[in-house]
Amino acid sequence: MDTLHVKSSQNVYPVYIGRDLYPKLNELIPDTYTSILIIADQTVADLYLGKVINGLKRSNVHQVIIPSGEASKNIKMFYELQTKAIEAGLDRNSLILALGGGMVGDLAGFVAATFMRGIDFIQLPTTILAHDSSVGGKVAINHEAGKNLIGSFHAPAIVIYDIATLQSLPKKEIRSGFAELVKEAMIDNTAFYKSILQTDLDDLNDQQLIAYIKKGIKVKAAIVEADEKELGIRKYLNYGHTLGHALEAELGYGQITHGEAVAFGTLFATNISEKIYDCDLKFGQLFKWFKTNAYPLDWQHINLHRLIERMKMDKKSVARHIQMVLLKEIGSPTTKKIRESELLDFLEQFMKELG
Amino acid sequence: MDTLHVKSSQNVYPVYIGRDLYPKLNELIPDTYTSILIIADQTVADLYLGKVINGLKRSNVHQVIIPSGEASKNIKMFYELQTKAIEAGLDRNSLILALGGGMVGDLAGFVAATFMRGIDFIQLPTTILAHDSSVGGKVAINHEAGKNLIGSFHAPAIVIYDIATLQSLPKKEIRSGFAELVKEAMIDNTAFYKSILQTDLDDLNDQQLIAYIKKGIKVKAAIVEADEKELGIRKYLNYGHTLGHALEAELGYGQITHGEAVAFGTLFATNISEKIYDCDLKFGQLFKWFKTNAYPLDWQHINLHRLIERMKMDKKSVARHIQMVLLKEIGSPTTKKIRESELLDFLEQFMKELG
Repeated sequence: MDTLHVKSSQNVYPVYIGRDLYPKLNELIPDTYTSILIIADQTVADLYLGKVINGLKRSNVHQVIIPSGEASKNIKMFYELQTKAIEAGLDRNSLILALGGGMVGDLAGFVAATFMRGIDFIQLPTTILAHDSSVGGKVAINHEAGKNLIGSFHAPAIVIYDIATLQSLPKKEIRSGFAELVKEAMIDNTAFYKSILQTDLDDLNDQQLIAYIKKGIKVKAAIVEADEKELGIRKYLNYGHTLGHALEAELGYGQITHGEAVAFGTLFATNISEKIYDCDLKFGQLFKWFKTNAYPLDWQHINLHRLIERMKMDKKSVARHIQMVLLKEIGSPTTKKIRESELLDFLEQFMKELG
Repeated sequence: MDTLHVKSSQNVYPVYIGRDLYPKLNELIPDTYTSILIIADQTVADLYLGKVINGLKRSNVHQVIIPSGEASKNIKMFYELQTKAIEAGLDRNSLILALGGGMVGDLAGFVAATFMRGIDFIQLPTTILAHDSSVGGKVAINHEAGKNLIGSFHAPAIVIYDIATLQSLPKKEIRSGFAELVKEAMIDNTAFYKSILQTDLDDLNDQQLIAYIKKGIKVKAAIVEADEKELGIRKYLNYGHTLGHALEAELGYGQITHGEAVAFGTLFATNISEKIYDCDLKFGQLFKWFKTNAYPLDWQHINLHRLIERMKMDKKSVARHIQMVLLKEIGSPTTKKIRESELLDFLEQFMKELG
């Protein structure tokens, strides 16, 4: 088992990464909690809920299972989970355990952040994508108008990453997770980026996966420790997300994985970064790698005006002006305001280049 | 104009108290906000919204008016306000202005705390009661099962208390506000408590009112500065609230003012404190003062078992055991776990003593 530590304004929390950690949950989680509510989505519950409950070896453990998919991350489910927490008799010394991918972590985390004005929660991520979302304390639900618009900062008490769960991931979830790794690599350093471009997602072993996840978490942790509340450099983690979030919302949450949408956004941000800063970000290689690994990139039918309207609602926007994260080179992110007409030109050109 | 300063983990914020401050809002509020959303309830909007907008002298000011009364502090209204904030084009550098009593402050504050993971908000309290709720950063909405069960800690950027607004208060709102002042006096010091017991609520002048509000805010500020997240002594501010909240929920939000419910709870907490700690808290005088000032105390028909069920859902409960704040003497609060059977006895006796 590997252990990383992440500093937040509220605490310093450990991130445990390893194989078969669920049988050890009782040792990893303090025994001072009066009760525990496990929140899991259906897919993950079928596979791991029993193992988690066995591993906890506690009485006073409650559970609630929600439908899988991003569509559950809404205000109605948020309120239902508050009701479940009340009915289960949770108090301020209770714990919420988020068992699942980023959707469950964000939703359960926001419930924990706001139940009786905030109780502890522990993340048990079960996807590669969640290496990103489980660290950094961002929790939220979606609004019809945009992703993660309602939320707060609430650092987890612990993150326990049992990578045995990653074996059950469908292909699109592996793609989804690697899109965030690509992003982290691009904003951080060339070697990391190059190694991903040489990786075949159909042929990954445990060792590689652990190494990549640790690398990704380290990039993320360094940034959130320096700027927890996203007043400055934390914005860089949004590379690829301005268009990614807009695409995700436009298609309808759950129609495409978060990472697949981010991959498309990353490709776009890379495309215009090269044009604006006259740099070489290996757009061609990146496009090829996404295609080889079957990322969905064929969005020619999407209405660009509607996409731009959604991009305006991005949380980085200031007075409705779109701000994108771009790269001056690999490892050198920056933010840039882009006029609407300019953006439309870039999008049209980009779509043509994708063919 | 008087100025107090309150320290939170997020900031140090000024509390301005004085007469006719709305014409000076442009000077009191920084001009760096990209836009402002004023949230006001109907009653207050009719009286003061125009004055506030005039005083702001800004462009990009939006407004939303919600129905008056505690019943608005629910999840549906919370989501509607998020929608309004999005539609108005608010961004992370925007401001929410809460114009009204505690209900508006709690609700608008919780919207601000969670809109795009937190933006600034400024409190413009318009009731005496709100001297308590506008300071300390507690924001929340109600759940059907209990008051303020969903919320967070989000300190205001500024509190601007224009006491000219207090002149329009109906009698029951004056009673409501003074119930929290009684509570603050009792947990703090004897002289403050005695002076209130000698005050006739039908005959208050500006000077007295400002002096009382300042005293109340000072008691509150000292406590929240020492224990913002209510890990210890902040609980003492809940004197009278365990039964108060339960009564408020049992009658249905809006059927009785918050302070009137707290007055009843304070009377009960005082009654059993005298019995348990064998001290003199002037229960008789307090009862008489509440009666003289027309506080509603006639709750003989209420089902005590249901009240107790609601008291169990209090946020101070630990593993469903009721914890009440009691007084060993004036100025010496403490918390005490009380068994259900014991509580029922106390309640029955108390009801008899009220006659």
